[in-house]
Amino acid sequence: MQNIIVALDAMGGDFGPQVTVPAALRSLLLFPELKVILTGDQTAITSKLSLLVGCGTYPRLSIKHSDKVISDSEKPSLALRHGSESSMAMAVDLVANDFANACISAGNTGALVAISRFKLKLLPGLEQPALISTLPTALGNKTWMLDLGANVSSSPDSIFQFALMGSILAEQHLGRLPRVALLNIGSEKIKGNHLVKHAAKMLYQNKLVNFIGYIEGNQLLYDAADVIVCDGFLGNICLKVCEGTAQLFMDKLKLTLVGSSLRTWIAKKIFSGLFAELQTLNPDQYNGASLLGLNGVVIKSHGGANVLAIVNAITEAVYEVRQKVSTHITDRLKSVLCERHY
Amino acid sequence: MQNIIVALDAMGGDFGPQVTVPAALRSLLLFPELKVILTGDQTAITSKLSLLVGCGTYPRLSIKHSDKVISDSEKPSLALRHGSESSMAMAVDLVANDFANACISAGNTGALVAISRFKLKLLPGLEQPALISTLPTALGNKTWMLDLGANVSSSPDSIFQFALMGSILAEQHLGRLPRVALLNIGSEKIKGNHLVKHAAKMLYQNKLVNFIGYIEGNQLLYDAADVIVCDGFLGNICLKVCEGTAQLFMDKLKLTLVGSSLRTWIAKKIFSGLFAELQTLNPDQYNGASLLGLNGVVIKSHGGANVLAIVNAITEAVYEVRQKVSTHITDRLKSVLCERHY
Repeated sequence: MQNIIVALDAMGGDFGPQVTVPAALRSLLLFPELKVILTGDQTAITSKLSLLVGCGTYPRLSIKHSDKVISDSEKPSLALRHGSESSMAMAVDLVANDFANACISAGNTGALVAISRFKLKLLPGLEQPALISTLPTALGNKTWMLDLGANVSSSPDSIFQFALMGSILAEQHLGRLPRVALLNIGSEKIKGNHLVKHAAKMLYQNKLVNFIGYIEGNQLLYDAADVIVCDGFLGNICLKVCEGTAQLFMDKLKLTLVGSSLRTWIAKKIFSGLFAELQTLNPDQYNGASLLGLNGVVIKSHGGANVLAIVNAITEAVYEVRQKVSTHITDRLKSVLCERHY
Repeated sequence: MQNIIVALDAMGGDFGPQVTVPAALRSLLLFPELKVILTGDQTAITSKLSLLVGCGTYPRLSIKHSDKVISDSEKPSLALRHGSESSMAMAVDLVANDFANACISAGNTGALVAISRFKLKLLPGLEQPALISTLPTALGNKTWMLDLGANVSSSPDSIFQFALMGSILAEQHLGRLPRVALLNIGSEKIKGNHLVKHAAKMLYQNKLVNFIGYIEGNQLLYDAADVIVCDGFLGNICLKVCEGTAQLFMDKLKLTLVGSSLRTWIAKKIFSGLFAELQTLNPDQYNGASLLGLNGVVIKSHGGANVLAIVNAITEAVYEVRQKVSTHITDRLKSVLCERHY
């Protein structure tokens, strides 16, 4: 079995080593072929490690010290200029220099995108990278959605390239040509702004992507498409709207399970399965969005991720390295974009 | 008691007279001061009326015949040019010519906006009208959100004006200066695209609006602001994402209430109150978005509205006429925009 080396920015996100260190340990127990390099403050990481598994060295876990952390409020351009010694940049560097197969950070999205673009470079012909992740659906399937916020604005050309990248990635999972749709305010052809109309025109004329047209916001979780494409500003906000609404419903439902009355006891007995099913419908449960379009695997985790969510992000990284997702997309994209089929 | 005359486009929406006629009858029973003018196909309307309450004339209900219906796929520009005899345009005309105090349509949104702008005219100083409606919140309050799709793109100036209109409307309901927020991909000042950054700058410099900054998509239903402002493309899609997610949870929950087993009986006993509460959290339950910024009251209903939803839209129209919402906004806006406080 070939080793998979993941560089994990231990300082990123709201909780830093408090969640990244136990998540790394848990992942090492889950994947025997995994090695983790934690980048960040050595003292904080070692202290958390000691607390959890005692002092000493561990063969599959190493630390690369950095005393600089990029804050969430730091501008991407400044992070790029002054953040080369940060825990985040170090994690990306390890991939760029082939010391790791993938890197993960729960830190500042803009900074991660800027640093990754700079260090790993965009694939030839691409305009922008895109963050992609899956949404759960009513029928228990998955729908891939991109861009979830790698960029705040995009051109029709970029939207077309997102559709292409999303289609290639989903095809690897599904084993068939995925149905690709553009998110819009209506399903009729006359609807939408300049960006979606122009991108739709390119997608309709193209034979590489199975473009099924526009879908509306209320179809997001209803298996209407395998890949949903939109610009990063819209995608990021829509995903969060989805998560917020799901969270509100779960919060209200959980209230019926609080307490020690007979009513609560019966509710717990009978509806635990239902609650578990509903829980899986919250996109927030799925952590780890891939930054597609670069020469290397970069996974962005939620800022507020807990231990389990970071483990999910590491699992996604392991999957992508195992399946050579990045290489596959790179090869397909290279041939497509160089031949300029569209 | 002063009469309130509402012109209702009987042909708009997915179901036409099948829902608009019974909704008109139900509203007449609810509001003694209400008169309804139904615009649309006389035969279809009369036939539905006969079926429901028998042949004859009714003192507070009249019909204005039109045999033209604007379809959902018609371009707004074409609807404006060729649709002057349509049921929708007739309803707006009745307001423009002071034969009605408000009009309602469940038809093509783009066409309704174009026709309303043309016939009722924008208030002086305004760049665009905006669709506004309320969202339910976790604490049982309301949050106003605009623009929900009157426009597919807007300038920072327009966004600022939406904030101002939304603030004036919400203040009338709340009796205090509302907290106004811009929807964005993050709460930090550095986040966002050109549009929100520019609009935020104008709002921070202004003293007429209590601007509290950016909010993210997951805070939509969590009482984070009284008024949430965004462009119409984003607003329309976010509202539908919210509705779709809420619907999915309700669908799954309802499955536990189907059947006649003991489990179902217990579920009904335990969850009936909860279901009712959750149902109120679906924004889809609230029908009737106001088109703000025009010389007259125009209410847009969902295309898929049922009888109860159309009644809700009529109720909103009655409320706005009673409270002179339009006049109040007009007066405040006129003074503000003419004085150019910003």
